[in-house]
Amino acid sequence: MTQITIPARRGKAAFVAAGQVVTVINTHGEQVVDTWAFNRHDMAEFMSMEHSRATHHHLIPHVGDALLTNKRRPILTLIEDTAGGVHDTVMAACDRYRYEELGCTEYHDNCTDNLAEGLAALGLTPPETPSPLNLFMNIPWTAEGELSFDPPVSTPGSYVRLRAEMDLVIAFSACPQDILPINGTAGKPTEAHFTIT
Amino acid sequence: MTQITIPARRGKAAFVAAGQVVTVINTHGEQVVDTWAFNRHDMAEFMSMEHSRATHHHLIPHVGDALLTNKRRPILTLIEDTAGGVHDTVMAACDRYRYEELGCTEYHDNCTDNLAEGLAALGLTPPETPSPLNLFMNIPWTAEGELSFDPPVSTPGSYVRLRAEMDLVIAFSACPQDILPINGTAGKPTEAHFTIT
Repeated sequence: MTQITIPARRGKAAFVAAGQVVTVINTHGEQVVDTWAFNRHDMAEFMSMEHSRATHHHLIPHVGDALLTNKRRPILTLIEDTAGGVHDTVMAACDRYRYEELGCTEYHDNCTDNLAEGLAALGLTPPETPSPLNLFMNIPWTAEGELSFDPPVSTPGSYVRLRAEMDLVIAFSACPQDILPINGTAGKPTEAHFTIT
Repeated sequence: MTQITIPARRGKAAFVAAGQVVTVINTHGEQVVDTWAFNRHDMAEFMSMEHSRATHHHLIPHVGDALLTNKRRPILTLIEDTAGGVHDTVMAACDRYRYEELGCTEYHDNCTDNLAEGLAALGLTPPETPSPLNLFMNIPWTAEGELSFDPPVSTPGSYVRLRAEMDLVIAFSACPQDILPINGTAGKPTEAHFTIT
């Protein structure tokens, strides 16, 4: 089975047929992977965290949960998770504005641009930047609703498996965040990998 | 001060100048009001829950928090809240697909269409349906991230005040949800009101 690389700080997209399984591997253990999915036949229909939460009723999807599109149709189902069940659905993809907010004065790689570049390599354009499924990202919440950006709890080689419920385009970004500790306290974004079987 | 009506089950939009204050009144006490804001001069820039949470670090905005656009610029600041501080930022606006999922076989009023109709009355079109600020909506979470759709805790006449940080278009929908108890256990959506001062 061929592992496809999501290069450090970059995006990568691929076509997936209904029924295939995408395995997203946190190769080095501390890398957040922003994940999007679009209906292969209609890019305007895409995986939506806000629509998914309204149906599965979880801040983080559980094994067995379907992720829904903005038309409330299943597009991916989470079928296995060896990464500790800690992911994020509430934070936007990072973007040039985020890094400006964090003090950057020059261009910084970012997940929003990575989504566009990953899709562009397939000749596609995102209709917008949907709020991503941030795999391996650790955003704990308190009873009072306080949120924080914490290092991942996943381990090297841990993975999630997602079953495609329709023909789709999947897109990933190996998040280039190196200012906050969400890719580990060392602030060293790494590559990650995926397979389609 | 003129109160503007958000009719029961319908949408309403208005122009707001930078520095003006919008007061959203839960007139009858149990009505969810989906709320959106767009840059008056560029509808492609709009209030975004996922971008706001990444900066204010709260599942529900607190008094003093700025709501940010998808360019991470403040568009509204929550300056007063007499409604118990219970609102929602994690659920999508209801739409035809939601009511189909809930068993409706005929058209049901919905917040997504109400956004479009409210803006259309001003000659505007939403670039997409951003995930709304669901004022007065009670979506509690547990330590495990379980979510539920509960009746409002707000009281008749309670309100929130939002200060405009740029020239903007504000849009509201008096949520027509009458299947789940989010507009009260009676399932009777009502009107709400707002002022601009």
